[in-house]
Amino acid sequence: MAKKYAVGVDFGTESARAVLVDLADGGEIAESVFQYPDGVIDEALPGSGVRLEPDWALQNPADYVESVGRTVSAVLQSSGISPDDVIGLGIDFTACTMLPTRTDGTPLCYLDEYRENPHAWVKLWKHHAAQPEADRINAMAEERGEPWLSRYGGKISSEWFFAKALQILDEAPEIYAAADRLIEAADWTIWQLTGVETRNSCTAGYKAIWSKQDGFPSPSFFGALDERMRDVVATKMTENILPLGTRAGGLTAKMAAATGLREGTAVAVANVDAHVSVPAATVVETGRMVMIMGTSTCHMVLGEAPEIVPGMCGVVEDGIIPGLAGFEAGQSCVGDHFAWFVENCVPATYEREAEAQDIGIHELLEEKAAALTPGESGLLALDWWNGNRSVLVDVDLTGLLIGATLATRPEEIYRALIEATAYGTRVIIEAFENNGVPVNELVAAGGLPERNELLMQIYADVTGREIKVVGTTQAGAVGSAMHGAVAAGAAVGGYDNIADAAAAMAHLKDRVYVPNTDHKQVYDQLYAEYLLLHDYFGRGENDVMKRLKRIKTKVRQ
Amino acid sequence: MAKKYAVGVDFGTESARAVLVDLADGGEIAESVFQYPDGVIDEALPGSGVRLEPDWALQNPADYVESVGRTVSAVLQSSGISPDDVIGLGIDFTACTMLPTRTDGTPLCYLDEYRENPHAWVKLWKHHAAQPEADRINAMAEERGEPWLSRYGGKISSEWFFAKALQILDEAPEIYAAADRLIEAADWTIWQLTGVETRNSCTAGYKAIWSKQDGFPSPSFFGALDERMRDVVATKMTENILPLGTRAGGLTAKMAAATGLREGTAVAVANVDAHVSVPAATVVETGRMVMIMGTSTCHMVLGEAPEIVPGMCGVVEDGIIPGLAGFEAGQSCVGDHFAWFVENCVPATYEREAEAQDIGIHELLEEKAAALTPGESGLLALDWWNGNRSVLVDVDLTGLLIGATLATRPEEIYRALIEATAYGTRVIIEAFENNGVPVNELVAAGGLPERNELLMQIYADVTGREIKVVGTTQAGAVGSAMHGAVAAGAAVGGYDNIADAAAAMAHLKDRVYVPNTDHKQVYDQLYAEYLLLHDYFGRGENDVMKRLKRIKTKVRQ
Repeated sequence: MAKKYAVGVDFGTESARAVLVDLADGGEIAESVFQYPDGVIDEALPGSGVRLEPDWALQNPADYVESVGRTVSAVLQSSGISPDDVIGLGIDFTACTMLPTRTDGTPLCYLDEYRENPHAWVKLWKHHAAQPEADRINAMAEERGEPWLSRYGGKISSEWFFAKALQILDEAPEIYAAADRLIEAADWTIWQLTGVETRNSCTAGYKAIWSKQDGFPSPSFFGALDERMRDVVATKMTENILPLGTRAGGLTAKMAAATGLREGTAVAVANVDAHVSVPAATVVETGRMVMIMGTSTCHMVLGEAPEIVPGMCGVVEDGIIPGLAGFEAGQSCVGDHFAWFVENCVPATYEREAEAQDIGIHELLEEKAAALTPGESGLLALDWWNGNRSVLVDVDLTGLLIGATLATRPEEIYRALIEATAYGTRVIIEAFENNGVPVNELVAAGGLPERNELLMQIYADVTGREIKVVGTTQAGAVGSAMHGAVAAGAAVGGYDNIADAAAAMAHLKDRVYVPNTDHKQVYDQLYAEYLLLHDYFGRGENDVMKRLKRIKTKVRQ
Repeated sequence: MAKKYAVGVDFGTESARAVLVDLADGGEIAESVFQYPDGVIDEALPGSGVRLEPDWALQNPADYVESVGRTVSAVLQSSGISPDDVIGLGIDFTACTMLPTRTDGTPLCYLDEYRENPHAWVKLWKHHAAQPEADRINAMAEERGEPWLSRYGGKISSEWFFAKALQILDEAPEIYAAADRLIEAADWTIWQLTGVETRNSCTAGYKAIWSKQDGFPSPSFFGALDERMRDVVATKMTENILPLGTRAGGLTAKMAAATGLREGTAVAVANVDAHVSVPAATVVETGRMVMIMGTSTCHMVLGEAPEIVPGMCGVVEDGIIPGLAGFEAGQSCVGDHFAWFVENCVPATYEREAEAQDIGIHELLEEKAAALTPGESGLLALDWWNGNRSVLVDVDLTGLLIGATLATRPEEIYRALIEATAYGTRVIIEAFENNGVPVNELVAAGGLPERNELLMQIYADVTGREIKVVGTTQAGAVGSAMHGAVAAGAAVGGYDNIADAAAAMAHLKDRVYVPNTDHKQVYDQLYAEYLLLHDYFGRGENDVMKRLKRIKTKVRQ
């Protein structure tokens, strides 16, 4: 039998990227990136020029379909692989990124009648204008004692599905009424590829409050929020949620023509970018946490059962790997933290020093920070420059630095910020372990681990755990291709399940970061201090951070 | 009668400065500066090259005598004033700056026998090698319940007289034994000018634990510290302490020749640089606090009686103005704080912006910080980058910044640091007021008020008090000249007391900083938060700062 391949398409915020992958060993044969023509729509609607309010972020669904055609045909062409040997297609997406459509899947923004209404377009994950609706959902859930609230750390994000749906109802009831379907862009894109409407367990579970046991929140909950929303699930969604790797359908003739793939090629149900990276990082079992480290960090780990872990972002059965509970937690400020520091706090003398050495400023800082011993700066920080996602779930917390003296140097602060994010990860790990979800090993993915050896070593030293790094820089697309291979099945040269696919196709780098025992011992002491401050400022003993924010809001009015 | 004049000589850390002053109106007629040839001796002894340990800081007493000759002759010459019309001379000095001498005043470091022993030289105020001795003095005083400890905020500094004396005894008993006299360099210099050994109430009170009521600590205290030190006061000092403005004696023939002044010119007893600035800032009565603002800030206020104010640096009857109790408090990190920030935390982009505008970086920061409204940054800092002198008297406290977000800008941090020092001053003011020492108005002197309008306005807004600024930039030398005029007396064209001298000679600038009520109201809220953190971290509830310092010390070993 000839070598077989699958294609994964990773839909990011600004562009989509296809990777053609060898199913035998995960080899990345070809790659293609396409920038969305309309990109992130945050100022005015395309065509009409209708202005958007602050905090809005939309997209044009046509860009997704065009992306598939452009990138998949490009990888086929540049690789020279025959479409006969490409047996599966998988995609992963940002989430929650959602839109209203007709029964046949036509987005409302394609219709002349609604084109000039911003609510008819795709609401991108980072559309942040639904905070009032999220607040109402949280208050109502708490009032009614909804059992699902604890699965999400006690708080639903304004980025999630029902906050966005409720915003449509609040602000554009005519759009809400005209929407036969409210659907994740991920699932909508699969619909366009296969002609079949499906919903995947990952976005349903992490973004739309679905669980395998209890389904979606009840009509009575939605009715209490707004009577017009009572039957939102029954009338505008579906309760048929499919596990990851399921074959959604075969590629339509139209999309086969656009991509160059064969009609009927197996297409997997959609997935989320972070979650699809887990099997691509070789993780298909319990006990190994994947950290996707970029501007923020997403922590994912698998467990036998959906335990309640206080302060996590969510737990979803089948949410990452079928048959296991997928846990997600997060830190909202990691790479962003270091970028802020470099932009705002590095003196001109350092810039000149970096120039003289012909290296970047990040590199110079890493060099200087790496020369320091744990504890020698006397500094400690709380990594809350962008609030705290896990385990405190509080956007109103802010950053803190303690221990500064007149001898404090920039690289000491830089290292303290890195250490603070490592302590934050340790808090998350301990929350999991204390609630029956073991975390024995860490696997890092994303942009940061590639570039920052010091960061990785500090994380190993602080957490006392070995850290491995995922072998590919395209974990999303490779993970999607793996799911495409599972959708195709072993009979045609794919795989019967994601564990088999991961065993063959997923790889780690050789370099392993092993905890330094001496460093660990000092970090244990510093971590105890971190925890003390974490609880003092984060659990209500001194709400100074919130009061400062209130004063700030008031004087800015 | 011809116009009369006096000369004041201000002995700083690196140089001495003489100012010739018109007694009628305080007009500064001529000025001369002389750099000490040996400067601060902190690496090796002059001549022998004997190496010094870290934290040592010595001076050569010969430099003081040479300074008087050089600078006083220079002001006489450049002004063209007849020495007949110069009726008084006063000096002020850094303190505690002390040395061992023979009975006739000969410094031990002048003698071949002792020249190569560092302990034979002048220990400068910032000689910091006597910390173990200060610790012993404090522990013993606490153990014995010495009543004087509370006059100094519960702690004696390692910079002070008996810590330095005990270090000599510990490390060089032969020098201690050979020292017929242990004396402040200020008093020693007056001895050289007049041939008369005197001791002034200011250095005795603030640096050598003397009080008008109780004298020095008892022989039994010194004996408990070290039997050899039991009679230190009786044998190596004097209990005859003279109030400020007292005539120490007349200028000797030798010093008259060196300076060009008339033999017998009235010379006042010595004074301390900060304290002598108080009458030069027009303050000779209760209720008005003088802040000498430079790298650190020294707060001085007068009271009717020597109340115990927790956390102040000292209270001395006749210590500043005869007949009143002089209170001193301090903040150890003010100008140093802003300098640290500029050196370590201002990005290259700001440097380029300042260059483009052709202004300094401090000026650019002030411009940007001044555009902010109180409270709008959401930031709050504890100004403890160099520990806390008043009211916590704790060198192991460190700096804290809270409220940072990804939107935090450098000028917001800069302003937060300025505000933090203002809150620190408010804590000191309230400590005085809560203990029977009213503070109705502030008068600022020193380098910072000259250059920083924003700083002055923030201090007015935070403290809710009007701030005036001293009229001269040479408050030390002018204050010394005023004391010289008092030593001469009204009969010869001087003054009978310092109040009369101040009424004629001391001036304030026209500009008055008046509190902005709106700002004050926001700062009251922020100050409440500052106090909460101040007490939490500073009064033992969470000693994280000390623990971080201990870890730092340990890992650096």
